[in-house]
Amino acid sequence: MPITPDQQAEIAAARATPRPTLRAVSEGMEARLYTAHPVLDHGFVRVIDYMGDDAAICQAARVSYGRGTKSVQNDEGLIRYLMRHWHSTPFEMCEVKLHIKLPVFVARQWIRHRTANVNEYSARYSILDREFYIPAPEQLAAQSVVNNQGRGEALEAEEAARVLDWLKGDAARAYDHYEAMISQEGQQGLARELARMNLPANIYTQWYWKVDLHNLFHFLRLRADAHAQYEIRVYAEEICKIVADWVPAAYAAFEDYRMGGVTLSAKAVDCVRRMLKGEVVTQETSGMSKGEWREFEGFLG
Amino acid sequence: MPITPDQQAEIAAARATPRPTLRAVSEGMEARLYTAHPVLDHGFVRVIDYMGDDAAICQAARVSYGRGTKSVQNDEGLIRYLMRHWHSTPFEMCEVKLHIKLPVFVARQWIRHRTANVNEYSARYSILDREFYIPAPEQLAAQSVVNNQGRGEALEAEEAARVLDWLKGDAARAYDHYEAMISQEGQQGLARELARMNLPANIYTQWYWKVDLHNLFHFLRLRADAHAQYEIRVYAEEICKIVADWVPAAYAAFEDYRMGGVTLSAKAVDCVRRMLKGEVVTQETSGMSKGEWREFEGFLG
Amino acid sequence: MPITPDQQAEIAAARATPRPTLRAVSEGMEARLYTAHPVLDHGFVRVIDYMGDDAAICQAARVSYGRGTKSVQNDEGLIRYLMRHWHSTPFEMCEVKLHIKLPVFVARQWIRHRTANVNEYSARYSILDREFYIPAPEQLAAQSVVNNQGRGEALEAEEAARVLDWLKGDAARAYDHYEAMISQEGQQGLARELARMNLPANIYTQWYWKVDLHNLFHFLRLRADAHAQYEIRVYAEEICKIVADWVPAAYAAFEDYRMGGVTLSAKAVDCVRRMLKGEVVTQETSGMSKGEWREFEGFLG
Amino acid sequence: MPITPDQQAEIAAARATPRPTLRAVSEGMEARLYTAHPVLDHGFVRVIDYMGDDAAICQAARVSYGRGTKSVQNDEGLIRYLMRHWHSTPFEMCEVKLHIKLPVFVARQWIRHRTANVNEYSARYSILDREFYIPAPEQLAAQSVVNNQGRGEALEAEEAARVLDWLKGDAARAYDHYEAMISQEGQQGLARELARMNLPANIYTQWYWKVDLHNLFHFLRLRADAHAQYEIRVYAEEICKIVADWVPAAYAAFEDYRMGGVTLSAKAVDCVRRMLKGEVVTQETSGMSKGEWREFEGFLG
Repeated sequence: MPITPDQQAEIAAARATPRPTLRAVSEGMEARLYTAHPVLDHGFVRVIDYMGDDAAICQAARVSYGRGTKSVQNDEGLIRYLMRHWHSTPFEMCEVKLHIKLPVFVARQWIRHRTANVNEYSARYSILDREFYIPAPEQLAAQSVVNNQGRGEALEAEEAARVLDWLKGDAARAYDHYEAMISQEGQQGLARELARMNLPANIYTQWYWKVDLHNLFHFLRLRADAHAQYEIRVYAEEICKIVADWVPAAYAAFEDYRMGGVTLSAKAVDCVRRMLKGEVVTQETSGMSKGEWREFEGFLG
Repeated sequence: MPITPDQQAEIAAARATPRPTLRAVSEGMEARLYTAHPVLDHGFVRVIDYMGDDAAICQAARVSYGRGTKSVQNDEGLIRYLMRHWHSTPFEMCEVKLHIKLPVFVARQWIRHRTANVNEYSARYSILDREFYIPAPEQLAAQSVVNNQGRGEALEAEEAARVLDWLKGDAARAYDHYEAMISQEGQQGLARELARMNLPANIYTQWYWKVDLHNLFHFLRLRADAHAQYEIRVYAEEICKIVADWVPAAYAAFEDYRMGGVTLSAKAVDCVRRMLKGEVVTQETSGMSKGEWREFEGFLG
Repeated sequence: MPITPDQQAEIAAARATPRPTLRAVSEGMEARLYTAHPVLDHGFVRVIDYMGDDAAICQAARVSYGRGTKSVQNDEGLIRYLMRHWHSTPFEMCEVKLHIKLPVFVARQWIRHRTANVNEYSARYSILDREFYIPAPEQLAAQSVVNNQGRGEALEAEEAARVLDWLKGDAARAYDHYEAMISQEGQQGLARELARMNLPANIYTQWYWKVDLHNLFHFLRLRADAHAQYEIRVYAEEICKIVADWVPAAYAAFEDYRMGGVTLSAKAVDCVRRMLKGEVVTQETSGMSKGEWREFEGFLG
Repeated sequence: MPITPDQQAEIAAARATPRPTLRAVSEGMEARLYTAHPVLDHGFVRVIDYMGDDAAICQAARVSYGRGTKSVQNDEGLIRYLMRHWHSTPFEMCEVKLHIKLPVFVARQWIRHRTANVNEYSARYSILDREFYIPAPEQLAAQSVVNNQGRGEALEAEEAARVLDWLKGDAARAYDHYEAMISQEGQQGLARELARMNLPANIYTQWYWKVDLHNLFHFLRLRADAHAQYEIRVYAEEICKIVADWVPAAYAAFEDYRMGGVTLSAKAVDCVRRMLKGEVVTQETSGMSKGEWREFEGFLG
């Protein structure tokens, strides 16, 4: 369980004391604030703060004075137009700050998205908790045979059990030794910045992550995608639900144009046009490689 | 006058309707929201939105659950420690969105600070207003004779009058022709994206500018500095006052360690130590160039 | 003419003295180095330096030791794969530094691409040359009647002549007064940082612009696009030719997947599938707005 | 040993084949290219490519045509001026690409420097080598008693031996199980993207890291500092030597103004001035906190 009763009490206290503000307010996001949304076995996503709403996107696009909108329909249309034409700067005018608890190997992928602000729990300064990500048995997948970078079918029960034993046993032993190394009882105690090197990549860390909506959409497009590793995808999917509550019109446009959208190459555009004229196009006559053609067939449905 | 009565009414309306929020609230910033603070003859700075306060900086530094502070004094001490040791990421956890109206030549300097989000009024899409920065007579300074990149004394009255005549006359004529070129009465009307090229660099533009507190401090250190051009410095100074109301502890640390701080080279450190031991150090014995020594004398006071 | 004989001699000298290097060399780029490629009436693009080639992209993708490639065909296939799947980091491993001379209003659009390094000629420190962009008559287009942000037909001869007279006259007068204001003959001379404000946006400036290949492709996709303003598009087109010589395989993939590519929304994908099954889809049955449908018809060709 | 004979042969081959170029060449850097400079027990730093030299910094600062320099002394003076006055953009005009092999816990600190391009060896796609950082006994330091984030004295021999046993034993066991989990002999074999989570933070990874000189200096100032963790500091120190060969004038200015420089707060400046006038200043009369005063005493020497 990721949240202790003390922490739960702090969250409840933070949620109990509304204050007046003159800023743009998103009711959907207010309902989310501070609550820990569980992800994986010990992780979570919590909204700590946000700036802006759907109307703020339109206001920036118009660089106008007031709230800048005549009707909700107009705002939706403008937001769809901005998304379709890659006008990204108005989406940068919204910002969100999340508190995230996640395994280190997930954090290592996540941090590659550079246009964000991060404060991570410091294992030089502090002692990490004894919490490790242990996959649910159905997530113990074999190496994909068609994709070097992916998963295939779930492991057979016996192999899965063996894997779980190793993961649990090695994590426990590594943490026991971590504790023993830093202990100052009857010895000097190894520096924390050194002792942490014994800990495996499935240990949990946590950070504050602050990002603007445009760059968040970019992150979500890549990490909520079916090809992303499951363990980061579940975080992205949880954040998608939060964003849908925060900026419903922007999220709907994102779903239509980005998550559900497809980018075709010039060759693929040509093939679609020929097919719509009745021509039967094959990989051989398409000008595409086998890999591209396979993906094109996926697009054709 | 930068603000029309209609705009003033919109601002009053926006300030009249507080709504409840669970987010961190800065009372000093709430008092500022939406109001246009005048700068130069037609410019202004307006706070559109903000995220975070002094406590949010400390909270991020501690990556803790609650508001993360025992007492205000503790927070102030932590903020001073973070500033002194260049721990910049907690300051990135605060964000501000400003609406700024400014001359184009100031905007061209400003935009060089890349770590910010910007939506500028588009002169491809819209028609610029007839508003030009005309310096006050006491700002009409001669080229500095000691500094290639700076100002010297104010111009004599007659020369100043000549300059003002040219600035006003050329701006008026350029704008008359701009209007005449885009007019669609009795002619096709030149595309706005072309007609704008006739307008001088003292015409006003406006933008939404969103930036985190760390990068804002970096901007302010360079642009509120005595060596910055006067026309951008007055914007920086106005923003300094806003930031002092928003995050008083962070701003006080910024003033002490950055604005009032001095960076000494290894050579200068050596000289100070020798001088404190009673040695008389001159430029010749300092190891510094003449330029460096002049700046070092400035440090000595 | 953008290049003086002295400058031409310097370029020839720089091109006359090859030196040995162990770094990756692109023959196509060596042939380009230093030469000024003219753009518009006084502008140019010059390659000052570059890092990497097609093989360097593959090498980074493989994080391998040697040149990392078995055959050219393999490298081309890998580069196409990386481009198709938005694996952008290997393209960031190539870098180019350009010297560009361009009108100020083009520079103002250009600088919005923030992920680049820039050193611009300083009008605080130095005196700008008397060079203004005056459009060729066929570029004097009317405001578009269908697109708020674009051009329509060329102006009639008489109107075009009137526009050219104003552009030329105002530029000449503004520059005359600029010179007169900064002159130190018989007067103090206005500071250059102030006098520059009288100059219109079609005056030429110049800068060094350094960018990695991934971000350059992003710039080119937006600015070599048919919807970009003509005056920046011609720079982008010139740079496209340079990049095609520098990294031919990467540029070919960029042309196929980005410049010639099309992004379809989820709704558009659905329509294509229905049409391929023989259904007649109209705007009314598509779920798209009129604007989206018009763009979709463009895709259908 | 970080480099296999095969790899050594590849490096030798790459160094054996100079090619002519018209670009700026740094002789000091040519001598470094491709060679692996060992760091820690299995790590290294290798220069893969570079762009620019000291003259290129000056050329960008002058945005001039030719090599832009009359004499070496002038260039050195200009570079010192640029560094002293925080004119950072000319330093951004140089770029370097390094191949680095480093423990994962070092990589996790390193990646926090966001303004760089990175391609890391992928443990989703590939299998990591059995190489772990095991500190030399003299590096096994106790937790600092004065600094929560630092090291104190070396551990006593018996305690050090116990720590080494744990580090070696746990790493070996974790890797044995990693291999056993991904093995496809007699079982399906766990996906590599999952199996990697069992590996501790002292396993080695590698990446290509490309950065401009300004941001590299920022990295070096923080990571070659005495307060940085030893395991990242040794990488920074090795890179310092490389940079000193690459751009000697810029590196000398960096050493004087940044590495050896000291930033004083407004309060500290005031104290220095009072002390130079003969006043005896104590912590009580300084206005500084105890922590600041301790650091100020360090400055006084």
